[in-house]
Amino acid sequence: MTRFALTLEFDGTPFMGLQRQKHGPSVQQAVEEAVLAFSGQEVRMQSAGRTDAGVHAYGMRSHVDIETELTPFRVMEAINAQLRPHPVAVTHIEVRPDGWHARFDCIGRSYIYRICNRRAPLTIERNRAWQLPQDLDQSAMHDAAQVLVGLHDFTTFRSVNCQSKSPIKTLDRLDVRREGEWVLVEAEALSFLHHQVRSMVGCLAYVGMGRWSKQRLQEALEAKDRQALGRNAPPQGLYFVAARYPE
Amino acid sequence: MTRFALTLEFDGTPFMGLQRQKHGPSVQQAVEEAVLAFSGQEVRMQSAGRTDAGVHAYGMRSHVDIETELTPFRVMEAINAQLRPHPVAVTHIEVRPDGWHARFDCIGRSYIYRICNRRAPLTIERNRAWQLPQDLDQSAMHDAAQVLVGLHDFTTFRSVNCQSKSPIKTLDRLDVRREGEWVLVEAEALSFLHHQVRSMVGCLAYVGMGRWSKQRLQEALEAKDRQALGRNAPPQGLYFVAARYPE
Repeated sequence: MTRFALTLEFDGTPFMGLQRQKHGPSVQQAVEEAVLAFSGQEVRMQSAGRTDAGVHAYGMRSHVDIETELTPFRVMEAINAQLRPHPVAVTHIEVRPDGWHARFDCIGRSYIYRICNRRAPLTIERNRAWQLPQDLDQSAMHDAAQVLVGLHDFTTFRSVNCQSKSPIKTLDRLDVRREGEWVLVEAEALSFLHHQVRSMVGCLAYVGMGRWSKQRLQEALEAKDRQALGRNAPPQGLYFVAARYPE
Repeated sequence: MTRFALTLEFDGTPFMGLQRQKHGPSVQQAVEEAVLAFSGQEVRMQSAGRTDAGVHAYGMRSHVDIETELTPFRVMEAINAQLRPHPVAVTHIEVRPDGWHARFDCIGRSYIYRICNRRAPLTIERNRAWQLPQDLDQSAMHDAAQVLVGLHDFTTFRSVNCQSKSPIKTLDRLDVRREGEWVLVEAEALSFLHHQVRSMVGCLAYVGMGRWSKQRLQEALEAKDRQALGRNAPPQGLYFVAARYPE
């Protein structure tokens, strides 16, 4: 039995999320069925993060145990061949020791949230970004975002369905920058609460529109109350970028 | 009657092309029906370029004549509202004199062709690029591309269905560069033959794989024979970027 660490890229649009769900298709189900199809083995995939319906990933990290004589490269090719036509692909594969765990060994997770700041509806980027017509002040957003960096009780920015034991997390980085009509929010932490990035981005969008001040964001954080949330940004702008592990 | 110049962005995936077709939906039909829906007027849209099924545009330029009291901004908003759910949007609008013509007054057209150079199938970028697994030498591609720049008979790179009077065109620019796993080909000219960009990119891909030399590309050009073509690159990697006009 070999433990394979997979780097997964996926378009989250057609899925109920990364994790297996009773009520619809998931990325996990797609990968597990692909492994079953080429190896005849029922595996259970573990992943660094959970993502909601419609959320994408450039570099999710997961692992599966497979009994095989194939090289890692051939395993990757076999999974990718069986994954079609799902918009999920293994972009990298490595063998890991049996004790290695994609979720528990992960020491850093990063996300990017893409806002398309323009009047016109999205076409090529439909389902790939949050379109906001109001002119956003990305400098004010970046400045306000620094209120959230560090060790805080993020209860305000936490889904009521969050299963994390504690709302206290350390946010390592929250940067906002503009590239033409794009406003990009990058977040890094050891781990995030459920909906944390989308909730932070939703409030930062209020700051960008001038509806919220930095002070107002600070007060929302300190309220430690979901009712103090401005809004949740929609899922289609969110991308899981990478998971870090000790080398 | 007011002549409105429209800048169009579209995802070409669900369309048979920009121009009206008897056998399926087109971008032109979508925009003309949107104008009809808000104004009650049957218009005929003219465009700077024709694009094939599956080809995208960031900045196609077109014009339509509409009898209206609305400001250009409101006309744009009305067309965009009626265009839903088609993946087509008007990103910019301007009033032009009656004699102005999106096609005949255009003095420059530019395209970008996006190759995703990796083993893994596309997910987020599916239908948005050409995936090629062989390692491409982008420097060799750029060097060879310069053979095609200038005034040439491009018969080799011309579709048998091309309606242009002459195969002789001046190619102003053909640059190839790499950005990570992306190989990007940018082309500029007054005008292009039908399939010219895709045909040039298909042969440049052969150069990038080492199957063709620069000399071989030169010979293909000089053959002035469609049979000398290496291959046509698929439509989903091609984007019409912009049309230029005298100011």
